[in-house]
Amino acid sequence: MADKSLIQPRTLKGFRDFPPGAMIPREQLVDAAKRVYRSYGFAPIDTPALEYTEVLLGKGGAESDKQMYRFEDHGGRDVGLRFDLTVPFARFAAKHIGELGTPFKRYHVGPVWRGENTQRGRYREFLQCDFDTIGTSSAVSDVESALVIHDLFRALGFERFTIRINDRRLLTGVLEHLGLVERQTDVLRALDKLAKIGAEKVAAELVEAAGASEQQAAAVLAFASLEGDPAALLDQAAPMVGASEVGRAGVDGLGALFEAVAAAGTDPARFALDPSIARGLDYYTGTIYETFLDDLPGIGSCCSGGRYDDLAGLYTKQHLPGVGASLGVDRLLAAMEELGLTDGAAAPCPVFLPMLDEGKEQEYLALAGELRRAGVGVELYPEARKLGAQLKYADRRGFRFAVIAGGREFDAGTVQVKDLASKESREVPREDVAAAVSGARG
Amino acid sequence: MADKSLIQPRTLKGFRDFPPGAMIPREQLVDAAKRVYRSYGFAPIDTPALEYTEVLLGKGGAESDKQMYRFEDHGGRDVGLRFDLTVPFARFAAKHIGELGTPFKRYHVGPVWRGENTQRGRYREFLQCDFDTIGTSSAVSDVESALVIHDLFRALGFERFTIRINDRRLLTGVLEHLGLVERQTDVLRALDKLAKIGAEKVAAELVEAAGASEQQAAAVLAFASLEGDPAALLDQAAPMVGASEVGRAGVDGLGALFEAVAAAGTDPARFALDPSIARGLDYYTGTIYETFLDDLPGIGSCCSGGRYDDLAGLYTKQHLPGVGASLGVDRLLAAMEELGLTDGAAAPCPVFLPMLDEGKEQEYLALAGELRRAGVGVELYPEARKLGAQLKYADRRGFRFAVIAGGREFDAGTVQVKDLASKESREVPREDVAAAVSGARG
Repeated sequence: MADKSLIQPRTLKGFRDFPPGAMIPREQLVDAAKRVYRSYGFAPIDTPALEYTEVLLGKGGAESDKQMYRFEDHGGRDVGLRFDLTVPFARFAAKHIGELGTPFKRYHVGPVWRGENTQRGRYREFLQCDFDTIGTSSAVSDVESALVIHDLFRALGFERFTIRINDRRLLTGVLEHLGLVERQTDVLRALDKLAKIGAEKVAAELVEAAGASEQQAAAVLAFASLEGDPAALLDQAAPMVGASEVGRAGVDGLGALFEAVAAAGTDPARFALDPSIARGLDYYTGTIYETFLDDLPGIGSCCSGGRYDDLAGLYTKQHLPGVGASLGVDRLLAAMEELGLTDGAAAPCPVFLPMLDEGKEQEYLALAGELRRAGVGVELYPEARKLGAQLKYADRRGFRFAVIAGGREFDAGTVQVKDLASKESREVPREDVAAAVSGARG
Repeated sequence: MADKSLIQPRTLKGFRDFPPGAMIPREQLVDAAKRVYRSYGFAPIDTPALEYTEVLLGKGGAESDKQMYRFEDHGGRDVGLRFDLTVPFARFAAKHIGELGTPFKRYHVGPVWRGENTQRGRYREFLQCDFDTIGTSSAVSDVESALVIHDLFRALGFERFTIRINDRRLLTGVLEHLGLVERQTDVLRALDKLAKIGAEKVAAELVEAAGASEQQAAAVLAFASLEGDPAALLDQAAPMVGASEVGRAGVDGLGALFEAVAAAGTDPARFALDPSIARGLDYYTGTIYETFLDDLPGIGSCCSGGRYDDLAGLYTKQHLPGVGASLGVDRLLAAMEELGLTDGAAAPCPVFLPMLDEGKEQEYLALAGELRRAGVGVELYPEARKLGAQLKYADRRGFRFAVIAGGREFDAGTVQVKDLASKESREVPREDVAAAVSGARG
């Protein structure tokens, strides 16, 4: 029964608390992503959570408009909470690129907010984790984007994943060759449904909505259904683009990209050419990436992106082509948990130090200080209680080791090191504790 | 002249963009803080940016009320952006502590929002970085809070800093002894102005606003003005609390605390007892911490906190005493820059790899991959351009080394390693590059 004088400690629907058990894997994932991004020269930026509505909706359509948290601030300004990191990056680039210079490589990790219908299992606040290279059209940046995705998934511990790659120019080439290029948007809209509604219904839509003949529809579907290793697939695709220049550029670009990711030392089996992926309608103009976990294909793409012609045309005349991708943090965490890839230890440090003897607080504090200076994180229980109760606390928190010391050990200059998983204990000299728990995360 | 068809890429007053030059030191500071927090067993949590207004204003006074960004969401709920991390932590604790158990040690790093007057040099969006231990009244947690602050400042590279410590119980004891304890709030309000308006005016306010006699005012000021090393100062303070039990507990507690921080292996000169610090009116009930940089005293306290009797009484009947502190991120970054403590290298990785030969993209990608697998972060310039132009880019970005290779080096299996600060180059075998740039941040 609720006490009426208390305020109910509830959260808003679609918003989440993250207790340590949920937050520690999130921090580990974000840290791993940042390490990979930095190892390619991507630098961090941040932008405000709140921006002028005019700035945020410049790029958004009706969907963003309805979903955005929008209100009037204390100064009567029409403001909103950012609903992605792409629009703020475009605004940021327009404002700062003159001073920063190009090419400019940034990563950005931060929350975004959308007042979506939560019944679809969506959250109204979620973390985005994006990286982009802007100010260059070099194909090297497309290759590096694929390599960053590869290194990310490896760093997170995934073994079996496939980065599916396509190039918009390929389909444009096919449509040019078929004389359907003016209907490209309608064709993309139909093809986007291929996995969901099947080839027959897509063919019907291509005829009805995109004005294709039955032969043209069949040719488009034959292209989108191509399978095989990249080189063989491109051999089949090449005649389908005929003499289309943009189509040939797509064929050559993809050929070079798959060669380059292999030359960079990756396992080529992790990269696939998939002519069926389209990703939205107008934004991407070149390479497209989607990343699937081979063991959990139903979860959908966990990292997606591609190349675009111009990032910030709404805010600046400076032409800023770019390429990048966005990590699906919530999906990846769910997958890592399902596949047992999250570090089992939920504790923020490896060692638990129970306090056994009242009156010896200073000796416990000194021992804990010694361990920390040796690089070993340690939580000291703040009150002298029975060992059993303290070890229950340690189990619940997920510590890997308990370092146990009482009057006898302090006198002898030793401690008991107990492995909390195997329950095995051994006595070691105090100066050897760090070595005895080494290999444990700091 | 602005193009009228473009949207002006402006940000809201009081809100900031963080380009890499500002963001890299921020990330380093936050990472260092998290490492120290974790090394004491503090675990990360996060809470929503948006909460029910009722939840946020439960603890807030009129000040928070006016400053809070508050609006109606899509579902007609009265919601607001959090204005600190303490209120959300109280709400979080009330909701989850049953499942988490006590003691519970958490850190929380996240943005908060206040629609403050920006003319006082305040930001409307800023990062907070808090740690707290709740569910225990053990003095060991007070000692550890001081040690965490100490280790934090050391981890950030500060040598000369002073953690000023006081205990509310000391002043309470003095006021009990003087028969002024019922006017404690008025006394605190007057004492809080000591540094700003001086002893004479505080004495007048004690008389006028707190109803003290001139003798009582002089005694309060004599206490607040005590100086000296902690043991000597406590010897002088002890008679001032007379027979007050709470006052004696304060004297004993502080004595034990200063002994314990020294026993933990710190330099005692970094901890001072300062009877004049009060920190607000009602929240803190025991230990109080403020941290000053000896070289930049004017910047104010860069890490403040203390012990409180009950965190979450507005939301739960469970009594949750605690102790913690909050890092002043913006102040510390300003200080680190002024004192030259920020890592000079603004680049996110140590090595820059210029691209000299068009057509050799794959060899450059392979070399970059080799370096990354050896643990060395490297940015590959994506386009073949003149070396001079690329090195200018590298200088601007703040890389420490350039690894230079063209056709000759690829054939010979060597590279030129150029130190971008000293401008010295040397040729090394390709397999030795990682060693040649070792010591460089990954």
